Amino acid sequence: MKVRILVRLKPGVLDPQGRAVHHSLEGLGFDGVSDVRIGRMIELDVDEATTDEAIDQMCRQLLANMVIEDYSVEKLNTAEPA
Amino acid sequence: MKVRILVRLKPGVLDPQGRAVHHSLEGLGFDGVSDVRIGRMIELDVDEATTDEAIDQMCRQLLANMVIEDYSVEKLNTAEPA
Repeated sequence: MKVRILVRLKPGVLDPQGRAVHHSLEGLGFDGVSDVRIGRMIELDVDEATTDEAIDQMCRQLLANMVIEDYSVEKLNTAEPA
Repeated sequence: MKVRILVRLKPGVLDPQGRAVHHSLEGLGFDGVSDVRIGRMIELDVDEATTDEAIDQMCRQLLANMVIEDYSVEKLNTAEPA
């Protein structure tokens, strides 16, 4: 089973990397971008038997910094090209 | 309009960060994980008028390293909590 975990900074937390990318996009002439936020994507290949609770625990213990980050979990159809 | 860009290493490109996370997950006692790949998520807030071509150009010129990375673009419903 493929699981995609998206980790993003909580709203309100300053994102200097996103700001730098925003600035660079403007420098390259791309107008119309009003905000850029950068996060991480973690794709796990796990046993079918893996519970949602186990995936939550992985996020809380290792994959996300719960102080400043939120995460969301998406289960991908294994037939989908990942 | 919110646009989510997912940047991941091309298949076959070594992912040392993913390997380290995989090792750590095993160290924490999470069995049943067979692979971990780590990528970036970039969330853009762009004008409704922004074309798909412009977003593609942003990816190719700045957001992804096309030599070793692939990207995919997902348009998010603005009503969806991002």
